[in-house]
Amino acid sequence: MFLSTTLIENLIREDLPYSDLTTETMGISEHPAVMEFSARYACTLAGMDEASTILRHLGANVEPLEKNGTTLAAGTLVLRAKGSAGVLHAGWKVAQNMMEHAVGIATRTHEMVIKGRSINPDLIIACTRKCVPGAKTISLNAIQAGGGTVHRLGLSESFLLFDNHTAFFNSEDHLLATLKKAVIAQPERKLVVECDDLDYAMKVAACGIDVIQFDKVPPSSLQNWVMQLKKRFAHLTIAAAGGINIESIQAYAKTGIDIAVTSFIYTGKPLDIAVTIKPL
Amino acid sequence: MFLSTTLIENLIREDLPYSDLTTETMGISEHPAVMEFSARYACTLAGMDEASTILRHLGANVEPLEKNGTTLAAGTLVLRAKGSAGVLHAGWKVAQNMMEHAVGIATRTHEMVIKGRSINPDLIIACTRKCVPGAKTISLNAIQAGGGTVHRLGLSESFLLFDNHTAFFNSEDHLLATLKKAVIAQPERKLVVECDDLDYAMKVAACGIDVIQFDKVPPSSLQNWVMQLKKRFAHLTIAAAGGINIESIQAYAKTGIDIAVTSFIYTGKPLDIAVTIKPL
Amino acid sequence: MFLSTTLIENLIREDLPYSDLTTETMGISEHPAVMEFSARYACTLAGMDEASTILRHLGANVEPLEKNGTTLAAGTLVLRAKGSAGVLHAGWKVAQNMMEHAVGIATRTHEMVIKGRSINPDLIIACTRKCVPGAKTISLNAIQAGGGTVHRLGLSESFLLFDNHTAFFNSEDHLLATLKKAVIAQPERKLVVECDDLDYAMKVAACGIDVIQFDKVPPSSLQNWVMQLKKRFAHLTIAAAGGINIESIQAYAKTGIDIAVTSFIYTGKPLDIAVTIKPL
Amino acid sequence: MFLSTTLIENLIREDLPYSDLTTETMGISEHPAVMEFSARYACTLAGMDEASTILRHLGANVEPLEKNGTTLAAGTLVLRAKGSAGVLHAGWKVAQNMMEHAVGIATRTHEMVIKGRSINPDLIIACTRKCVPGAKTISLNAIQAGGGTVHRLGLSESFLLFDNHTAFFNSEDHLLATLKKAVIAQPERKLVVECDDLDYAMKVAACGIDVIQFDKVPPSSLQNWVMQLKKRFAHLTIAAAGGINIESIQAYAKTGIDIAVTSFIYTGKPLDIAVTIKPL
Amino acid sequence: MFLSTTLIENLIREDLPYSDLTTETMGISEHPAVMEFSARYACTLAGMDEASTILRHLGANVEPLEKNGTTLAAGTLVLRAKGSAGVLHAGWKVAQNMMEHAVGIATRTHEMVIKGRSINPDLIIACTRKCVPGAKTISLNAIQAGGGTVHRLGLSESFLLFDNHTAFFNSEDHLLATLKKAVIAQPERKLVVECDDLDYAMKVAACGIDVIQFDKVPPSSLQNWVMQLKKRFAHLTIAAAGGINIESIQAYAKTGIDIAVTSFIYTGKPLDIAVTIKPL
Amino acid sequence: MFLSTTLIENLIREDLPYSDLTTETMGISEHPAVMEFSARYACTLAGMDEASTILRHLGANVEPLEKNGTTLAAGTLVLRAKGSAGVLHAGWKVAQNMMEHAVGIATRTHEMVIKGRSINPDLIIACTRKCVPGAKTISLNAIQAGGGTVHRLGLSESFLLFDNHTAFFNSEDHLLATLKKAVIAQPERKLVVECDDLDYAMKVAACGIDVIQFDKVPPSSLQNWVMQLKKRFAHLTIAAAGGINIESIQAYAKTGIDIAVTSFIYTGKPLDIAVTIKPL
Repeated sequence: MFLSTTLIENLIREDLPYSDLTTETMGISEHPAVMEFSARYACTLAGMDEASTILRHLGANVEPLEKNGTTLAAGTLVLRAKGSAGVLHAGWKVAQNMMEHAVGIATRTHEMVIKGRSINPDLIIACTRKCVPGAKTISLNAIQAGGGTVHRLGLSESFLLFDNHTAFFNSEDHLLATLKKAVIAQPERKLVVECDDLDYAMKVAACGIDVIQFDKVPPSSLQNWVMQLKKRFAHLTIAAAGGINIESIQAYAKTGIDIAVTSFIYTGKPLDIAVTIKPL
Repeated sequence: MFLSTTLIENLIREDLPYSDLTTETMGISEHPAVMEFSARYACTLAGMDEASTILRHLGANVEPLEKNGTTLAAGTLVLRAKGSAGVLHAGWKVAQNMMEHAVGIATRTHEMVIKGRSINPDLIIACTRKCVPGAKTISLNAIQAGGGTVHRLGLSESFLLFDNHTAFFNSEDHLLATLKKAVIAQPERKLVVECDDLDYAMKVAACGIDVIQFDKVPPSSLQNWVMQLKKRFAHLTIAAAGGINIESIQAYAKTGIDIAVTSFIYTGKPLDIAVTIKPL
Repeated sequence: MFLSTTLIENLIREDLPYSDLTTETMGISEHPAVMEFSARYACTLAGMDEASTILRHLGANVEPLEKNGTTLAAGTLVLRAKGSAGVLHAGWKVAQNMMEHAVGIATRTHEMVIKGRSINPDLIIACTRKCVPGAKTISLNAIQAGGGTVHRLGLSESFLLFDNHTAFFNSEDHLLATLKKAVIAQPERKLVVECDDLDYAMKVAACGIDVIQFDKVPPSSLQNWVMQLKKRFAHLTIAAAGGINIESIQAYAKTGIDIAVTSFIYTGKPLDIAVTIKPL
Repeated sequence: MFLSTTLIENLIREDLPYSDLTTETMGISEHPAVMEFSARYACTLAGMDEASTILRHLGANVEPLEKNGTTLAAGTLVLRAKGSAGVLHAGWKVAQNMMEHAVGIATRTHEMVIKGRSINPDLIIACTRKCVPGAKTISLNAIQAGGGTVHRLGLSESFLLFDNHTAFFNSEDHLLATLKKAVIAQPERKLVVECDDLDYAMKVAACGIDVIQFDKVPPSSLQNWVMQLKKRFAHLTIAAAGGINIESIQAYAKTGIDIAVTSFIYTGKPLDIAVTIKPL
Repeated sequence: MFLSTTLIENLIREDLPYSDLTTETMGISEHPAVMEFSARYACTLAGMDEASTILRHLGANVEPLEKNGTTLAAGTLVLRAKGSAGVLHAGWKVAQNMMEHAVGIATRTHEMVIKGRSINPDLIIACTRKCVPGAKTISLNAIQAGGGTVHRLGLSESFLLFDNHTAFFNSEDHLLATLKKAVIAQPERKLVVECDDLDYAMKVAACGIDVIQFDKVPPSSLQNWVMQLKKRFAHLTIAAAGGINIESIQAYAKTGIDIAVTSFIYTGKPLDIAVTIKPL
Repeated sequence: MFLSTTLIENLIREDLPYSDLTTETMGISEHPAVMEFSARYACTLAGMDEASTILRHLGANVEPLEKNGTTLAAGTLVLRAKGSAGVLHAGWKVAQNMMEHAVGIATRTHEMVIKGRSINPDLIIACTRKCVPGAKTISLNAIQAGGGTVHRLGLSESFLLFDNHTAFFNSEDHLLATLKKAVIAQPERKLVVECDDLDYAMKVAACGIDVIQFDKVPPSSLQNWVMQLKKRFAHLTIAAAGGINIESIQAYAKTGIDIAVTSFIYTGKPLDIAVTIKPL
């Protein structure tokens, strides 16, 4: 994952537009020091590259001690950085805060993967583009660390048809004919259509669409629909979205869907990373 | 609040680096259309300026219908935008997703303000700098919409002494002498020291420090400490941080603190904004 | 297509970092003026949005007279802009030069589409990511104007396996097993493998790969291979790359491929746009 | 030549906004590897600094093996980079594509310099500002590598009077009087006027203009005009533009001009650089 | 102080958008060389971090020989850099010019601090936000090097009430009531009000305002007002602004004010730094 | 002069990273208001475009009342802006501070032009590139408003040979031979050499150099040298630099130089612009 200087400096500048008033007023900036990051709770690690890059960009000597994607016991030391107290204090909260958000996402993703795959070992947990605005790169990295997949990077590289698109077609015939042309026009991409009933899904699949994404369909109905669709369209991929979370993931996994699409993993508490800074 | 073109374009580019594959493949980009945003749940509104600026930057004609900070009933229409389907689809999810996060923060902030002030009408809900990295401007705006206050903008404009600073002083005498000098050196800023016991707080307050911020002190102890500190230091401001959330806010409000410092409001679900796009 | 202020200003700044020395030294900057762009040769129009945005950003009043993608006769007037001579001279060469490159790409793309589809009406002309570095957005827009398709936006959204990847696998068995896992891991994207012989293509297709991209295979061999692959893998998409240009496109179209992948369209002369500026 | 981080990251981001889907899905990112760039055809080398900077910025260990401006035999190895397969694949196409365009420009420039100077050893090949928009720095570097000169950096540092300027003068007298003042007003810059007939050139030269640039004048007429102008204005520099390319350069060199101004070198095929990546 | 790559590259690009025409035309770019910076006059050093970062960013090997804030004798060598002549010439003027401005600010600040504290050892010299636009980071660093304090970072982190604000209140009662609420609403910041008479200052101080800033009050009146205010409001901080400069600082220091607010230090000549570049 | 959004937003962000604490805390942001800028002293106006662009970018309705370059009497109203108090306060100090610096530069430039041309009507006042780092565009605009000329935009577009270049030549012969080649290699630019004695100037001029720039030569010597050089080299342009300021300009003008090169105009006080904001 490419972490640009622009991204790293935007994160730093949010916390440190100029100098660190406290550290400089207290006169401790030049003191040699060591900083240690450790996981306060059991978690799936993420954000290590961002944290390392932030701290190195500020001038610290960084020693990463664990890898993204590792499941850690509470208390595990994950990163050690050395440098002046000024440098370490400058990067402390930026790196810590970023990592806490990343670890939160990675841990929730990993939990969903584990629970979902205990039912269906090939189930894909695909994370939506509804990450916090401004935090896309960090979020994508954390999803990957947690074993999830990116649903869409954005509007430019993927085709997903919503009701807000179909509203522009006067007749279903016109819509389906346009979809058939789209299948031919985009032979290198999978086309996805959001559906909420079986009938529409059947018609759309018949156009050659690659993926049906059911929205807010309860697992009870979904299981039947998946079976019927897969019987008729062997190559069809089926996704479910809307209400997929750590509570519901196993019920959805049982329906036979291929992909569980979720924004749940962006939600919830960052996971605490304890940080200590000490003189050397 | 200044919303720079740079910020607005970064948000747009996260979702739309080039063109909108779905809308263009379906051939509906040029169709005149109208888009409406409405609150799916009761909430405190936020993110209106960002949403309007995003949509206008893409070329839409935007009509804001409600103001940031307003408490809305579920279902309230908040914004209407007109333009080509291409323009509206380009901005839809960027504006919606941003607003859902903003409304989530504003609503949680407002709830804490209401609950806290039901006990102490002058209580300040001060939000930490632990917002999601990359989302600072949006978060600050949402806090303001919810009636909260910004605790620190960052390291450069405020003084907050942590254990990670005091670790660099060999003796308490040296630390306290340095604090006294800091009080003189920074006469235009309030100096804040994080404490977790009364004894240290008393010593620090005697140095002329303006604000004591107690960290993770249970309300039971806090009430007594606040009383003792205020008796001796009439001008002292007292803040509490660590574990302040919608459940605990009233217990903390009863302790007599002036400021409740919280990261809670960044946590939790975005609040759904329903968006429809229709042909005109 | 989103044209960011950042992009537009980068283009302007390349030509106009500060002021226009000639126009200002000659003292004509304030004179009201009109500028007209017309196609010197028959061509497929592109770059209209970029040119309009550049000129409007500098303060001109712009009237676009033709649409991207239109096939024009030599001499057709495409855009008129009004403003001070200073404003029009500031944008003249930036807009003209950009449009000449865009029209060159669009025209070559369109010619390939016309020639290819005279043989196979569903043939897709897919343009590689080998555009001139720094000119990606302009190039993608011009391809679209010419009726072409984007092969890959870049590394992050598409899967294309080259020899430079397979070199890391000790055995073909290991490679094929990994490909099978990749098919499961990326259910929302089509997986493409570059091949140069039929045998390898057959094995790869059997892993569930969606697209075979043959590299530098002469049309004579290709026709036979396409037939054999399509017989066995009904859903397989077949692309050809390497040496696809305006001369060879019809020979390749006859082979039965679905997609002709080409960098040819980036090559060759910009197509002249005549620009006159006159006093009003 | 200053290669800013901003420029280098813009090039990288065009191809790699987030991660490399293929390399990561195939699980080979961490494998130690070596990448080699070699010239597929005889050429004049360029783009070495950009390629090295791109690859180093991504974390590779780069060993440049040849210098910009060197004339290479087909097959010459020019650069070797070591790093993880993930790092090398991240930079491969960005560096390769950039270098192919740069080598194309440098080789065409060098060929024109060689051919032109075989007639007139002091002939200057000056390249116009009509490079591909967004590729200015790369293009300027490649021109320099090929032995060419930059005609104008842009509008702010050079004076070149076109018909689109003179259209704002009611009388030739007014125009010439203004030119005389311009000569005094800009004593540190050479003033250039585009002409297409001898009479106008004579008048303009008499104003003290430093350079006459003839546009689209055939070599036959030009030779005579150059002789007449040089006889009368010993210090005058004469340039020719319009239709100067590898075919016409020698005919123009024979006319006695000092400068051949050309956009030809931006046109034409990038020159292939072969790239292999192998495990170490 | 965080010196971002963006800032450093903006400074470099102002002087070196592409290559160094002189050094390259003369053919000396590759020659190994050493550059030395020394203070031409006695001064307080500043700008060392910026100069080092600029030169390192361009590829030089930098050896800083003195520290920011040091008072230097004329002729002191402060920095030595090694690299190719091309690299050193690229950074020469950018670094020198920046440092001359920084040293000018630091030296004027230091002189004011010394003169002011000879009267009142606790006097704070607070520098306004009226630095040259675009030079904020450099200016803040230079102020710190000179022993000054930053008055306000900007509008977002500090409260300073001017007449241009009070003009919006119909009655003094309304204004004072609003100020009282502001004191409660912003418990973590000091509130400052600009005054020009004692009566208004008394009323404002009674609202709980932390700092009175007198504007353009002559020292004769000020001394009396300070005494009266301090008698009544023991915790009140008093600042003076308007006409505070190296001539007037001692007269103001005698009035008993706590803070002298000045823009004077931004004014005046940069202090010459002599720079030599020699072959190695 | 092109004023990019990037530049304008950098200026705004220096003062207003987020919101305006004072104006919002006082609750006056929404009040309709008018702001007026007027010159406190007689001056030459500059910075009008920047001020207008800043205020418009923030949402104000701006009415410029005077033009850049006009000589104004003290008290002249130059700009009126209308908008909410929030918008006007947001832009007040940014626009005012920028304009005060610009007017300072323009006024000093204009005074030098007037004084110098009272002696030599064709004298060019050329301003060096030693403007305050970060303030280049503003400074260039102000110089132009004052009637000055830009000496060099930077290193990339102009040739100026210093001792720090000649130090790399072992013999004068080698240096002069290289200069002769440079004259041929750069036929579209004037070549400038810094000299401090007549002998070297004569040799350099004989190489075909266009401009001799004498550094720190007193007017007494200079007059004689100029005469001797001009006698021998009719086309030679002669500049003087070092110690050129408002006091010395007339003495230098009398020497017969063509160009007075100065950094003086960047030095000295900004000229006060009075700003009032009132309710509408």
